[in-house]
Amino acid sequence: MTILDGKKISNDIKDEIAEEVKKMKAKGEKVPHLAAVIVGNDGASLTYVGSKVRACERVGFESTLIQLSNTTSEIELLDTIEELNNNDDIDGFIVQLPLPEQIDEQNVLLAVDPNKDVDGFHPMNFGRMALDMSTFIPATPFGILELLDRYQVETSGKHTVVIGRSHIVGRPMSILMGRKGFPGNSTVTLTHSRTKNIEEITKQADIIITALGKPEFLKADMVKNGVVVIDVGITRVPDATKQRGYRITGDVDFENVSKKASFITPVPGGVGPMTIAMLLKNTLLARERHSKK
Amino acid sequence: MTILDGKKISNDIKDEIAEEVKKMKAKGEKVPHLAAVIVGNDGASLTYVGSKVRACERVGFESTLIQLSNTTSEIELLDTIEELNNNDDIDGFIVQLPLPEQIDEQNVLLAVDPNKDVDGFHPMNFGRMALDMSTFIPATPFGILELLDRYQVETSGKHTVVIGRSHIVGRPMSILMGRKGFPGNSTVTLTHSRTKNIEEITKQADIIITALGKPEFLKADMVKNGVVVIDVGITRVPDATKQRGYRITGDVDFENVSKKASFITPVPGGVGPMTIAMLLKNTLLARERHSKK
Repeated sequence: MTILDGKKISNDIKDEIAEEVKKMKAKGEKVPHLAAVIVGNDGASLTYVGSKVRACERVGFESTLIQLSNTTSEIELLDTIEELNNNDDIDGFIVQLPLPEQIDEQNVLLAVDPNKDVDGFHPMNFGRMALDMSTFIPATPFGILELLDRYQVETSGKHTVVIGRSHIVGRPMSILMGRKGFPGNSTVTLTHSRTKNIEEITKQADIIITALGKPEFLKADMVKNGVVVIDVGITRVPDATKQRGYRITGDVDFENVSKKASFITPVPGGVGPMTIAMLLKNTLLARERHSKK
Repeated sequence: MTILDGKKISNDIKDEIAEEVKKMKAKGEKVPHLAAVIVGNDGASLTYVGSKVRACERVGFESTLIQLSNTTSEIELLDTIEELNNNDDIDGFIVQLPLPEQIDEQNVLLAVDPNKDVDGFHPMNFGRMALDMSTFIPATPFGILELLDRYQVETSGKHTVVIGRSHIVGRPMSILMGRKGFPGNSTVTLTHSRTKNIEEITKQADIIITALGKPEFLKADMVKNGVVVIDVGITRVPDATKQRGYRITGDVDFENVSKKASFITPVPGGVGPMTIAMLLKNTLLARERHSKK
C-alpha cells in the first residue's frame, strides 16, 4: 500500500513553481500576481485566504489581499471585480466563498473574467473543461489529477466511482476522469444522495473518489482489494483526547480501508494541501497565457 | 413494453410551439427568428438544414438560410457570425457542421453569442448546464430528456448507463441524468471505447442511453428485464432488399432487446425526430429571454 502524500507533492510543486519564478525574474519578466478578495470576517475564510497569500510569498508571486466589510453591497463587490478584470498587473484572482447573504454568489462568479478565473468556477471555464479545451481546472480536482499523475496510478479502462456531485469536486472529477488522456480514460460512475445500494457500486470500483463530508463513511467491506482511494472529505469530529477538542476526519475509515488499498490519501495531508499548490499553478498558467497575448 | 414515439412527441411539441407563436402574433409580438449558416454543398448537410428551415415554417417562425461557398475563409465566416450576433431581429442561429477544412470549428463555435447559441455547443452554455444554471441544452440531449419526461419514465435513484462520450450526446447526457430534478437524479455511469467488460455494466443498468454508431451493438443478453433503452445511433447498413439499397439501423438489436425492455425508442422515429423539435424549442426560449431584456 502506498500513501498518496499530498503534503510532500504539494511542496514539490511549490518548489518547482518557485524555480520557474526565479527564471522569470532572471529574465526580467513580470512575475505572476494573484489577488484575493474576501468579504467579511469569517474566521475559517480568513485562515484560508491567509494561507493562499503566504503560499504566494513562498513561491515568489506578487499577491494582493482585498478585504471588504461584511456590509459590502453586491454592486460594490462587482465594482471591485471589474477593477481586477481591467488591471493588467493582476494575472488571476479569487473571491473567497461563502459570501454574505446580501450578495448573489452566481452573479459574482459570472462577473470574473474567465481569463483570470484561477479558481476555475466560471461556467465558461467549466464548459471548456468538459469539452476538452484548455482552461483553468478547479484547484481540488486539479490536485487529484496531479496526485494520480505523480504516483503514475493507472486510470485508463479502470472503473472510477465518484461519491458526491458538488460543483467544485464531484461533478468536475466525474468529467475529468472520463476524458481522453492521462489521468483519465476511466469508466466513471457518479453517485450521490439519491443513489441506492451505494456499496454495490463502490465494491466494483478500481478507484474511489469521495467528496461527501460524512466522517468514515467508506468502510473496508465496501471496497475491493487493491482499490485506489482519494478522500476529499474534511470534517471536524469532537475528540476529548485532543487538546483542541476535535480531530480532522475524512470520508474514509482509513485504518481499515488502507489495509485493502493499493494507493490511499490520508486526511489530513492528502488532497487538502494540493489545493493551494494547484491554485498557484493556475496563477502561473494565467501569467504564461497573458504574456503570450 | 412501451415504444417511446419520438415522431408523435416531436409533432406534439411542434403543435404546441405553433400555438405559442399564434398567441405571440395575436398580441402583436415579434415571432422567433432562426438563422442557419451552411458552408459548402455537402448533400447531407443541405438536407438537415432544409428540414430545419421547413420546421420553422411549419410552426410560424421566421427563418433565414445563409449559404456560403465551399471556399469561404474562416474570417469571412466569423464576419457573418458577428453580423448575426449583432442583428437584433435574429433570436438564435446555428452553424451547420461539419465545416470545410480551411475553417477551425472551435473558433467558429466560440464566436457565436452564447445568448443566440440555440445548438448549445458554446462552452459557456455547456458550463452553465453542468453547473445547473439556465442555458440552451443541446438539441439531442434535450430531446431525450423530453421523451423521458412526456412518458414519465422514473429516473431518480435509477442506474443510467451512457455509452459513448461525444461532446454533443454522451457527455452532456451523462451530466444531465445526474443533475438534481426530473428527469435526473440518476446514478450515472459513462462508458466509452476504453471501457472494459461493458456488458457487465449494461446488465446492471435501469436505463441505457447509447450513442455509439455501431449497428445493433446492444444485444438482449447485455440488458436486464425491464430496462429502458434510448437509442441515439443512426447508421446506414447496406440492404439489397430495400429499393434505396440500405436501411437505417440504431445501436440496439431492437427486435430482441425490445422483448426485455419496459420502454424503448425505435430507429428511425425515436430520438431523431426530437432533435429538430428541440432546436425550435430553444429558439422559442431565446425569443422569450431576449424579449425580457
